[in-house]
Amino acid sequence: MSIHSTRRCMVTQVQAAPVRTRLSGILAKSALWLGLLPLALTPSFSHAIQPDAEYLVREKQFGDQWSAEDKQVQKKLTALEEKFGKKPNIIFILADDIGYTELGSYGGGKVRGFATPRLDEMADEGMRFLQFYSEPSCTPTRAALMSGRHPVRMGLLGVLFPGTSGMGLADEELTVAELLSGAGYHTGMFGKWHLGNDQGMTPIEQGFDEAIWHEGNAPWWSLYHGVKGSDNAGYVNIGALFWAPGPDNFSYDTGGILSGKKGEAPKVVEPFTLEGYDTMDSDVADDVIDFVERHADSDRPFFAYFAGKGNHFWGAHPDFMNQPAGTNNSAQMAEHDHNVGRVLDKLEGLGIADNTLVVWMSDNGPMYAMHPHGGYSLLRGEKGDTWEGGVRVPAMVWWPGMIEAGQEPVDIIQVTDMFTTAAAIAGVKSDIPSDRVTDGVDQRALFLLGEGKSRRDYIFHYNKEKLEAVRKDQLKFRTKPEKHHHNCYNLHHDPDERYPDLARYCLWAGPGFGKMIQDHKAMIEKFPHRVQNVYQREFDYPFDPNPNQ
Amino acid sequence: MSIHSTRRCMVTQVQAAPVRTRLSGILAKSALWLGLLPLALTPSFSHAIQPDAEYLVREKQFGDQWSAEDKQVQKKLTALEEKFGKKPNIIFILADDIGYTELGSYGGGKVRGFATPRLDEMADEGMRFLQFYSEPSCTPTRAALMSGRHPVRMGLLGVLFPGTSGMGLADEELTVAELLSGAGYHTGMFGKWHLGNDQGMTPIEQGFDEAIWHEGNAPWWSLYHGVKGSDNAGYVNIGALFWAPGPDNFSYDTGGILSGKKGEAPKVVEPFTLEGYDTMDSDVADDVIDFVERHADSDRPFFAYFAGKGNHFWGAHPDFMNQPAGTNNSAQMAEHDHNVGRVLDKLEGLGIADNTLVVWMSDNGPMYAMHPHGGYSLLRGEKGDTWEGGVRVPAMVWWPGMIEAGQEPVDIIQVTDMFTTAAAIAGVKSDIPSDRVTDGVDQRALFLLGEGKSRRDYIFHYNKEKLEAVRKDQLKFRTKPEKHHHNCYNLHHDPDERYPDLARYCLWAGPGFGKMIQDHKAMIEKFPHRVQNVYQREFDYPFDPNPNQ
Repeated sequence: MSIHSTRRCMVTQVQAAPVRTRLSGILAKSALWLGLLPLALTPSFSHAIQPDAEYLVREKQFGDQWSAEDKQVQKKLTALEEKFGKKPNIIFILADDIGYTELGSYGGGKVRGFATPRLDEMADEGMRFLQFYSEPSCTPTRAALMSGRHPVRMGLLGVLFPGTSGMGLADEELTVAELLSGAGYHTGMFGKWHLGNDQGMTPIEQGFDEAIWHEGNAPWWSLYHGVKGSDNAGYVNIGALFWAPGPDNFSYDTGGILSGKKGEAPKVVEPFTLEGYDTMDSDVADDVIDFVERHADSDRPFFAYFAGKGNHFWGAHPDFMNQPAGTNNSAQMAEHDHNVGRVLDKLEGLGIADNTLVVWMSDNGPMYAMHPHGGYSLLRGEKGDTWEGGVRVPAMVWWPGMIEAGQEPVDIIQVTDMFTTAAAIAGVKSDIPSDRVTDGVDQRALFLLGEGKSRRDYIFHYNKEKLEAVRKDQLKFRTKPEKHHHNCYNLHHDPDERYPDLARYCLWAGPGFGKMIQDHKAMIEKFPHRVQNVYQREFDYPFDPNPNQ
Repeated sequence: MSIHSTRRCMVTQVQAAPVRTRLSGILAKSALWLGLLPLALTPSFSHAIQPDAEYLVREKQFGDQWSAEDKQVQKKLTALEEKFGKKPNIIFILADDIGYTELGSYGGGKVRGFATPRLDEMADEGMRFLQFYSEPSCTPTRAALMSGRHPVRMGLLGVLFPGTSGMGLADEELTVAELLSGAGYHTGMFGKWHLGNDQGMTPIEQGFDEAIWHEGNAPWWSLYHGVKGSDNAGYVNIGALFWAPGPDNFSYDTGGILSGKKGEAPKVVEPFTLEGYDTMDSDVADDVIDFVERHADSDRPFFAYFAGKGNHFWGAHPDFMNQPAGTNNSAQMAEHDHNVGRVLDKLEGLGIADNTLVVWMSDNGPMYAMHPHGGYSLLRGEKGDTWEGGVRVPAMVWWPGMIEAGQEPVDIIQVTDMFTTAAAIAGVKSDIPSDRVTDGVDQRALFLLGEGKSRRDYIFHYNKEKLEAVRKDQLKFRTKPEKHHHNCYNLHHDPDERYPDLARYCLWAGPGFGKMIQDHKAMIEKFPHRVQNVYQREFDYPFDPNPNQ
């Protein structure tokens, strides 16, 4: 089922081939700035995390309780470290565009015409979150996961589309891979990076020892390289529907899937093809498993980042095409489910499951532009907005022996928390710099001591540069009103956000929300947002479709 | 927690009291027609069930397979009968207005600010249905459950409101209680009957040996009897909101909760009060448990019908008020969950769980007129319509040792099937008369042999007298178009019915749907619908709010 061996052949072939046209601008550029790498990879550390204002309010209230919990947490972690002789391994699995209600355990699966037995088993064996929040889209969630900061803070606002350059995860951001490298972890990144291809932005410049990656979703490039009108992919004649010449030499046409090691230049290991895209999730899982196998017996722990394939483009492994729903999404769901199962099986087979925290989550809600092939959520909204359907995502953590099986906490938790929690588990939380706000909250107590222990009951929901909603406990205050006034939802009463009721829910809470926003803004004034070189402009291509208007 | 003992005291008190004004018309009437009862209770039996046309199409296709399955089913049932020396007990629990996504196991529970641990446990231990369909509202679903027929066939179209009379479950309908009585079952009905109070319509005239019941939801009568402006019930000043004089002596003001035995006249055992309504679900559960205890050791099996309290009126047991959501619905959910658990515990305590099939289901979707106090469903639609939110309901069956634990079939199944399945389990399926269409399908193979064994992949969704939608496999064809054309939904792709797509889904299936409807209509011509004396007219009270218009 794997084309892994094929891919390895491609490396040699591409390197040896006289035709080097597939190697694009990035490779030439990378050669130029390789000399700068050592400096770029060294962030300025300090020794006290700087949380957002609302966290400080809660810390005042719960600080003593949290300290007591931290002692219990540390006891569990110390016992584990004594048993295995090293810190725990950590794996982040980031699925792409999977809606909140898609997995069997979340009311999807069979209801949606496919099955997710392995992810449901993972939920049974671990902790399944009912209120886990991502950022509204792909690049922002990835930035938040890597940096522990809301992407607005680094000026990284929306999805990086082909054609944007100069934008991505800025080199001065400290990534979880850099932090864990500092703690002695082997670090590897596999799959969809989508955080920029410019200098300092690639995974091997952002803390990963090794990576096999691609920027965004490969079909962009496959199409660019010239799909034919007769090309079929999955259920669709993709040629007839999507053929386009594309802009020449756009910024992140890397020519293929890249591979590299820290301090080296990236190499193209496989050209982009629609066929290659079909098996991409399975190939990425192979890469993750290979990395895990190589480091399982090391005296140092590992950190692997498995960034799955976009659930919203055509193409899935042929073995999984025959789902009852008959959609490409259903095939991709079944394939990804299988691949997550393979990773967990490998951990168990190697006897390291007990010493490995696995985080699985989706990067945002579904993309209805591809309906019915692009996923679904019963919740209102979709990828790209801050309605629940855009940002409340399926997510779970799995760590046999450490995380009690079968838990389903309704605790509020956010993607940035994965950064801080991983740092805390690796014992390097104090290395998170205090010259910037870190939104991620240490959630070790929730993971290891159980439901009700989240240190967060609030979220600032940004959409690009706009603060669209503020969450506190059951209430969600929308600062971007649909009508002439602000709106307020009670998410227990109304998880689908159908019944805004400022009077019923937020008249009393309004001043509280006002204060939260005020304090949050004051913190931004103290630690201003970064401004990126190039602002995200969607489809701002150098042509005017209506030149005469 | 029970006011059961209080209620028993009330019996004496009411009977002994000189003030008999609470005894209303029904009692006087019942005295008049008691003499007719023996005749009225004897339906005309015959020996071959008459299914709808689409079932016959499927029978042609799958008849051999079904016969083989029936042999396996019969083997299991025979072995059980040999073990216990009698047929299995059967309990129907009909919850009221609980939306598809309300239970924890369906993605609700904590997400909605309450917990349903006992119902979730019941799902874990039994079979939870992902596509179980009710009729669109309360009275119709109850009629379907009792008779195995879509209510349109008996002219019973909508909810019986106070003020309608001459309408209800016609005496010539054969109920599951009558069928099971014929098989030697003890039969008892407890709770919300809502199938009419006229001659021949009450539970003790419809096959139940004994019953403690009320018609519709008691608050109607409490209000009628005069709520004060200062009366509080649950979270709401119900007096301020709902005080109304009500029409005098409307048809189903029974004066209180009724109790009776087959062949006797009903007695009022408790007057209607808002306080009494608070604990009604728990009181009904007490009655069910009492019935079960009395018949557990009998040499004959029992059939109990537990019809829970409306989830959409204010009032819940004080012990359950303090739910995170702070709604009356959340308190009622927690209370009902607890009560279902008490019934299951009792079966286990008596050692008869293995010989008792328990069916739990909701009667229809939530009622948003009471939002946020009236339930919720993430699916589109609500009680009273045929969108999924109105008719796809949470449901499960539990039968330790007979129904394999943890099953979650996506098989299509409908409330009428409970009638036919119960008859088949009791060995009296052949007593179902063939002079009428019985829509209910024997689902023993699904229950006892597992997923994929449903004998139904279609539903005719009626709303009152209109056939609004036809379901076949994944597709739902809406015969009542929202725009100028019919619409079609693929429920795997789009369970929330957001994306009608006649072209994509139903152009090829249209002729198939046309044929289904044609054959269904031909069957109606052969077995015409009953016409009830009084047509259901909603709020057709004798006043004109705008006399001059």
